[in-house]
Amino acid sequence: MTLTGRELRSTLAEDGILTISLENVVVGDPGDDEVVVRVEAAPINPSDLGLLLGPADISSLTSGAGGGIAFTVPQGRLAGAIGRLGQSMAVGNEGAGTVVAAGRNVSHLEGERVGMIGGAMYADYRRIAARDVIPLPEGASAADGASMFVNPLTALGFVETARSEGHKAIVHTAAASNLGQMLQKICLADGVPLVNIVRSEEQAQILREIGATHIVNSKEHDFIAQLTDALEQTGATIAFDAVGGGTLGNDILQAMERAATRTMSEYSRYGSDTFKQLYIYGALDTAPTVLDRVSFGFQWGTGGWLLFPFLRKAGQDVVARMRARVVDELTTTFASRYTKVIGLAQALEPDILRTYERKATGEKFLIDPTLG
Amino acid sequence: MTLTGRELRSTLAEDGILTISLENVVVGDPGDDEVVVRVEAAPINPSDLGLLLGPADISSLTSGAGGGIAFTVPQGRLAGAIGRLGQSMAVGNEGAGTVVAAGRNVSHLEGERVGMIGGAMYADYRRIAARDVIPLPEGASAADGASMFVNPLTALGFVETARSEGHKAIVHTAAASNLGQMLQKICLADGVPLVNIVRSEEQAQILREIGATHIVNSKEHDFIAQLTDALEQTGATIAFDAVGGGTLGNDILQAMERAATRTMSEYSRYGSDTFKQLYIYGALDTAPTVLDRVSFGFQWGTGGWLLFPFLRKAGQDVVARMRARVVDELTTTFASRYTKVIGLAQALEPDILRTYERKATGEKFLIDPTLG
Repeated sequence: MTLTGRELRSTLAEDGILTISLENVVVGDPGDDEVVVRVEAAPINPSDLGLLLGPADISSLTSGAGGGIAFTVPQGRLAGAIGRLGQSMAVGNEGAGTVVAAGRNVSHLEGERVGMIGGAMYADYRRIAARDVIPLPEGASAADGASMFVNPLTALGFVETARSEGHKAIVHTAAASNLGQMLQKICLADGVPLVNIVRSEEQAQILREIGATHIVNSKEHDFIAQLTDALEQTGATIAFDAVGGGTLGNDILQAMERAATRTMSEYSRYGSDTFKQLYIYGALDTAPTVLDRVSFGFQWGTGGWLLFPFLRKAGQDVVARMRARVVDELTTTFASRYTKVIGLAQALEPDILRTYERKATGEKFLIDPTLG
Repeated sequence: MTLTGRELRSTLAEDGILTISLENVVVGDPGDDEVVVRVEAAPINPSDLGLLLGPADISSLTSGAGGGIAFTVPQGRLAGAIGRLGQSMAVGNEGAGTVVAAGRNVSHLEGERVGMIGGAMYADYRRIAARDVIPLPEGASAADGASMFVNPLTALGFVETARSEGHKAIVHTAAASNLGQMLQKICLADGVPLVNIVRSEEQAQILREIGATHIVNSKEHDFIAQLTDALEQTGATIAFDAVGGGTLGNDILQAMERAATRTMSEYSRYGSDTFKQLYIYGALDTAPTVLDRVSFGFQWGTGGWLLFPFLRKAGQDVVARMRARVVDELTTTFASRYTKVIGLAQALEPDILRTYERKATGEKFLIDPTLG
């Protein structure tokens, strides 16, 4: 059999033109340990947009060659993307679908509905190593399994990281996201206090409905005071921040320090003995991170948090335990909500692209290539 | 015997007036495991100035009550020092001198010349636990032993930290300092490549004379390019930064990332797989730290580095090994240079205070209370 299908590609040329197009590609027969999956659901995550659109200026959208679309990347932003210049890149971190062909060592997967991770999911078919797919539980749809890797493993990874680094409670920003809701459910189940930072009452309400008790709105005038109280009550000394840019991370470290010094008996000009950790895992704000160290002493750390390096460090046993939990709680703890399901070709329609590119809270797109 | 002596004190009152004065205090007899040391040498380190002067406005210097001096702390800076308000604080992290009285369990120390750490060294006498003193080797003067803790253990601690976190070469800023020279000597002896960042040709020359091979001047127009080359040659992925504020730390992380991506075969929008660590151990610039994460991906960490938390984490065996090396190499690797020796009362003279407060490179003051 020679299976062919469409595959979405993003290419940034040397002249700064970024083109998104659908290419017809030959899928190829599966190797002994591979399967070919018909993609039926693939989410559009912020992390996918980073590769899809790169540093392009969205307002420059025009129609491109062969039915594609094109953007201009401002000269000043090209340096950060130098490594991808001239390469046609497949997009889509994760997805789900039905196995239509399986190699001889994994023939038991034939016909199974599976979730999968590994890139190039915005396509009709994906040939993939069997170890990178997970059969879905009975009754779960492709949409149920489309986001079973990145968000669930990230949320579980936050709790694992907090525990292994000796923290007893967690702070999370942009906390009403799908990921944030999963994290809140995990923390409730596991008895880990969680301080949720949101930017609107609407977001606070989403979290309240799933049982969140510590919710702080960064738009309120006494945000820092409210946050400090929540940190003192919970003892949270580790934060996972999706925003990254500006002063939010600094505000969190400062509030942690204030909460810590409330109980200090002796002055130290190096600040409290409480170690405060800020992990930046997203870039909702790409501006520089500004850390006013004077406000939080010397006992602090910050850094990037990425899922795959975390999984490598955590080791096979931990990862196997995490994956099993995701399957068990796929339609409860790890349920994702999508506001719109589109076909693969629709992902290139200007109005639709502008909508999912906005990354509005609560809005989440799912691509189903079988829709066209 | 009732021994009395002078002790330098710094007091920040609620109204924002910071007073420095010499108090006459009763030293008290040593406990069973204590000694009383006549202080003969105590360095003025940047870390001492932080406690001595707090956030005072130096230009506001006036004479204070009882022969002391006084400063005004601007209202906006009082919040950061709230923990010390109203407390009379003794100053001086480390020093050296002669044991004039010893408790019954440590009588072998009587008459010995020792180095010591523990604060309150700007005084005629210091009563101190015997475990916090180290007898000086034969022939070493009090000046030789005055700085045998903070700088030597910090320099050794950098190398220990780099090794234990899996880095094979080190970057250091403000690298021509006494501490920086010790670090360069250790790195040469231990075969650890060191990239020195300085701000003048004069500083570069100081390091060249002790055998430094990688020296980059941050004032030169192609600083980032030179730094990137040095990082590629050495493979340095950990930096210890005395400056803290502004964009120097960012420049280092960015150059590490550029050096790493030079050898990457595959593009990743999360940046290179190379983990880059920046430790901030000083505050020569108290401005906020600005981190432009776009330029160095997600594989990075930064944080405060402080000697005492490091020593606690390193454990007794490591610390004992480090202390033994300091004694062995006290007048070679760990030799400190002082440009001026002053009496205790002179530390309060306005012109002298303004000079040591400037923290100019190469300039270092030693207090010898026996001079008056």
